[in-house]
Amino acid sequence: MGRGETTRQAILDRATALASEVGLTGLTIGRLADELDLSKSGLFGHFQSKEALQFQVLEHGAADFVERVVRPALAEPRGIPRLRALFERWLAWDSALPGGCVFVAASSELDDRPGPVRDRLVELQGQWVDVLATSFRKAIERGHVAADADPDQFAQDLYGIMLSWHHRSRLLGDPAAEVRARRAFEALLAAAPPAVPRPS
Amino acid sequence: MGRGETTRQAILDRATALASEVGLTGLTIGRLADELDLSKSGLFGHFQSKEALQFQVLEHGAADFVERVVRPALAEPRGIPRLRALFERWLAWDSALPGGCVFVAASSELDDRPGPVRDRLVELQGQWVDVLATSFRKAIERGHVAADADPDQFAQDLYGIMLSWHHRSRLLGDPAAEVRARRAFEALLAAAPPAVPRPS
Repeated sequence: MGRGETTRQAILDRATALASEVGLTGLTIGRLADELDLSKSGLFGHFQSKEALQFQVLEHGAADFVERVVRPALAEPRGIPRLRALFERWLAWDSALPGGCVFVAASSELDDRPGPVRDRLVELQGQWVDVLATSFRKAIERGHVAADADPDQFAQDLYGIMLSWHHRSRLLGDPAAEVRARRAFEALLAAAPPAVPRPS
Repeated sequence: MGRGETTRQAILDRATALASEVGLTGLTIGRLADELDLSKSGLFGHFQSKEALQFQVLEHGAADFVERVVRPALAEPRGIPRLRALFERWLAWDSALPGGCVFVAASSELDDRPGPVRDRLVELQGQWVDVLATSFRKAIERGHVAADADPDQFAQDLYGIMLSWHHRSRLLGDPAAEVRARRAFEALLAAAPPAVPRPS
């Protein structure tokens, strides 16, 4: 990476952290300039508009998510081990950002605001939901869970576990929320018992 | 109610609907004035600041939620029938607002923004989570669910079902999301089987 690109990546790291707290719509070039102690005109050199900044924060967050959550989980064996890795890394990803997962904030912010930023968010969130459903399908193929279990139901239920954990820990400050989220994940797997006995 | 109060309530109805779409932080006196075709100075007569407006929208939404969700459900017999009524009315409440439940939007918006509006939201959300846990506790007392089931786990899991349904239907536009939310609710009840056989 050239020096300009390194700077741009560093700015996007900070912008993503800020967006996790103030939301994508709260992320203005002026606010980011204050946060970074840079000039607004300097930032405009990197991002031509507020919308371009928001769009690039989404892309940056998505690339980071793939790097920290999806790719390492794909190194785990298909089926339950991979599902567990996805879940654990997803929890860690939310915990690592000051305001939690930037996509959680963006999702409820943008669900009623048409435009290219929302379109891209829908695409990214759809891809993530597909990763969850596909990973569950592999668990069915391996006989780790019952053949009649529904991958889309699993993906929606697992998403709920994450959103509720985020709500309960971030908003309500309940320290037991994480233990409950793990219990809910185990219960979700237990609700779809193995199709055939696994070798022990 | 006097005429001034009637007007104020009508304004708050519209403000709550608008906040469900643009979020509480997107709800400014200027934007609401545009929406209602009223003067900003007229609105300032009712709400002295943006923060006062946000605070009163929360109160208005909470009163409406009690009226439409909690109170009618309390008329149902304790235990499973009441839990089912709470769930069904919660779904209906989210569906009735143009942008869905105003508290969903507010929760992820405000979780990292300290201040009196967030404090009040935390109080209201804490009360609602308590209603869910208490209603589940009544179901334990009646023998509708197992005595060792955990009411706080139930409340967190049920919240997840709602949040995920909201995400999947509002953002991803998935028409099957509601059927899955109902299935998840039934699975949650089934996971805590009756402590004693119910009379059939």
